[in-house]
Amino acid sequence: MSYKVAIRSFKTLSYLGSYKKIRDRPIRYYCAAVLGAGYVAYKEFQRNKAEMKELIYLKNYMAEPITPVHQLQKNQDDMKTQMELLIMRIQAEFCRALEKEEDEEAKFKVDRWTRKEGGGGITCVLQDGRVFEKAGVNISVVSGKLPPPAVQQMKSRGKNFESKELPFFAAGVSAVIHPRNPMVPTIHFNYRYFEVKDKNEVHWWFGGGTDLTPYYLNEEDAVHFHLTLKHACDTHDPSYYDRFKKWCDDYFTITHRNERRGVGGIFFDDVDSPDQQSAFSFVTSCAEAVIPSYIPLVKKHKDDAYGYHERQWQLLRRGRYVEFNLIYDRGTKFGLHTPEARYESILMSLPLNAKWEYMHEPQPNSAEEKLMKVLKEPRDWLNLEKAKSTAA
Amino acid sequence: MSYKVAIRSFKTLSYLGSYKKIRDRPIRYYCAAVLGAGYVAYKEFQRNKAEMKELIYLKNYMAEPITPVHQLQKNQDDMKTQMELLIMRIQAEFCRALEKEEDEEAKFKVDRWTRKEGGGGITCVLQDGRVFEKAGVNISVVSGKLPPPAVQQMKSRGKNFESKELPFFAAGVSAVIHPRNPMVPTIHFNYRYFEVKDKNEVHWWFGGGTDLTPYYLNEEDAVHFHLTLKHACDTHDPSYYDRFKKWCDDYFTITHRNERRGVGGIFFDDVDSPDQQSAFSFVTSCAEAVIPSYIPLVKKHKDDAYGYHERQWQLLRRGRYVEFNLIYDRGTKFGLHTPEARYESILMSLPLNAKWEYMHEPQPNSAEEKLMKVLKEPRDWLNLEKAKSTAA
Repeated sequence: MSYKVAIRSFKTLSYLGSYKKIRDRPIRYYCAAVLGAGYVAYKEFQRNKAEMKELIYLKNYMAEPITPVHQLQKNQDDMKTQMELLIMRIQAEFCRALEKEEDEEAKFKVDRWTRKEGGGGITCVLQDGRVFEKAGVNISVVSGKLPPPAVQQMKSRGKNFESKELPFFAAGVSAVIHPRNPMVPTIHFNYRYFEVKDKNEVHWWFGGGTDLTPYYLNEEDAVHFHLTLKHACDTHDPSYYDRFKKWCDDYFTITHRNERRGVGGIFFDDVDSPDQQSAFSFVTSCAEAVIPSYIPLVKKHKDDAYGYHERQWQLLRRGRYVEFNLIYDRGTKFGLHTPEARYESILMSLPLNAKWEYMHEPQPNSAEEKLMKVLKEPRDWLNLEKAKSTAA
Repeated sequence: MSYKVAIRSFKTLSYLGSYKKIRDRPIRYYCAAVLGAGYVAYKEFQRNKAEMKELIYLKNYMAEPITPVHQLQKNQDDMKTQMELLIMRIQAEFCRALEKEEDEEAKFKVDRWTRKEGGGGITCVLQDGRVFEKAGVNISVVSGKLPPPAVQQMKSRGKNFESKELPFFAAGVSAVIHPRNPMVPTIHFNYRYFEVKDKNEVHWWFGGGTDLTPYYLNEEDAVHFHLTLKHACDTHDPSYYDRFKKWCDDYFTITHRNERRGVGGIFFDDVDSPDQQSAFSFVTSCAEAVIPSYIPLVKKHKDDAYGYHERQWQLLRRGRYVEFNLIYDRGTKFGLHTPEARYESILMSLPLNAKWEYMHEPQPNSAEEKLMKVLKEPRDWLNLEKAKSTAA
């Protein structure tokens, strides 16, 4: 792959070289282009080497990859391989980072499973820890055939497919972390890659997102979280953060209550531009931003004081989390209606404990009410001053 | 109405009188017919008087009826009135019966609500009692206009409606009781009446059911419960119990887990025969069977010993209850997707506390596993011996 990138870099620079101003000094410029292309290729080579290394040191992963290793090695340039290696790495890194915050003995339970039709997954769950009440980090790499309506459901902006049954491939990582301390927010993220073959044409796209569900609002935390995600987006496309932030607020809505699940983050389900490698690189940045966006909040609040009152509120909000996941979440619905779905992996997102009280209303001017206001009216976290003055 | 019934009885008997055998002794027979019609009319009069009395002693109800009292009095023969009075009475009787099992201070909180489009409801909830962790008994009497697909959803065996918007009326009572002691099962029941007007033709039907969700299987309890329901059915149609018992097992299935929610009961959603009054009478019997089917089980087990282990299992099973209600229950889905739905009343069915553990498996040969077996393979409770020998 590295030589392809080198050629692309070279072409880009050549194109730039066609500008009149630059054309005046062609030789110097072409030298720079060659050097630039070389540098990009070198970086790419380093990355590939690192990936291969990762492939060789399998013990770094939570379990053996779903696709046989020799096959992954043979198809290193294939996006399917790249995505599988990415999600394996993200899963392992995130699980280790969470375990670091836990007591020594609290470790993830690892279940590697396969499905009859093709592929499988690795489900890692840490339950009843001191810091994490329930933490689930799941990867799945599945393939098979699907009827077009099922494929449509994977993507909000659907394509019209012509075949009756479509061979598909899907690889993704998803995690939901429910901490014990109500001052530590819940995080959810999911990054996935799809390929669907229709009449010999392969359609591909990426989807994903990371979002935060606090029980008590800490504006500083929300800003830190959004800022980390914005940084990850901005290196790829300056329009991404705003678009995907809004998409996230819209998607994670508990419609019947007219409230958001949390303070949002980013969400997208049909990124297929500018090209496959760039889209993958964007998704990689997002997935790599999970740890820096979240672990500092865990460290900061895991030993905060709290009492019965705060725990009860956390349990009520967890009830809302269950409502969203079981009633509205497309991934959960799609998963549970798929025959032979591994429901334990799909439902690992549900909290260990949840509560429903009839007609619960937070006290006026309480910390609970402060959260509710933000859930009713999502904020623009990175323009707090602007947002506040607009609202006033 | 009573004279109408008398005429109907008379006509029926006259029709019977046309049989050759009876025609031979016409005078004696007609006497019998007149007497029979008189008796039916008298019974009807008694019933009406009782209903009117109920109407006068409004303080027996949990709140003022949704339909203004003078309107109810004016339209006493209308099925809409009859059903509203029935559900008001059933609600009050059931709430009082539950309160009797509770500590003195535990009383139902009563919310009478109205909706803009027409009608309203009375939601009664008792939360955090000593005997009942959460008990919700709700009635609603609503009318308005609905698009045909929404009407279709109310009924599994749909009719094709022609109008674009259908004026409808729906009145029903529904209750879910989650006791604190894991040895006391959860009960759910719901009885409802629908009217839909399409091109000046009024379509009507009744739906409903009562089902039991134990945490620990007590065969004697299950038999008592089913037997009480069978008695209620048998006086109306000997085929009802078997049909509606099977329907109940099919309906209350948590599909992704391939298990039933509980040990079943009866369920039907389109009873529109043999005639409106008979169907109403059947539904009345079913609704009146709730107390004798359930309260003895509460009395029997409310002081049973239990510990942490049993409580945890109860919470896990309550998680399954939430899964069924939020993912599969047509009433809940229909309710939550209706604009301006009173979600607090719809979601009162959710338990106060629920739990989800990843990959929980009951110990082999444990009491928990014994329950699971029945949830995986519903039993014919009233032919236990037969069922057991067939299974062997």
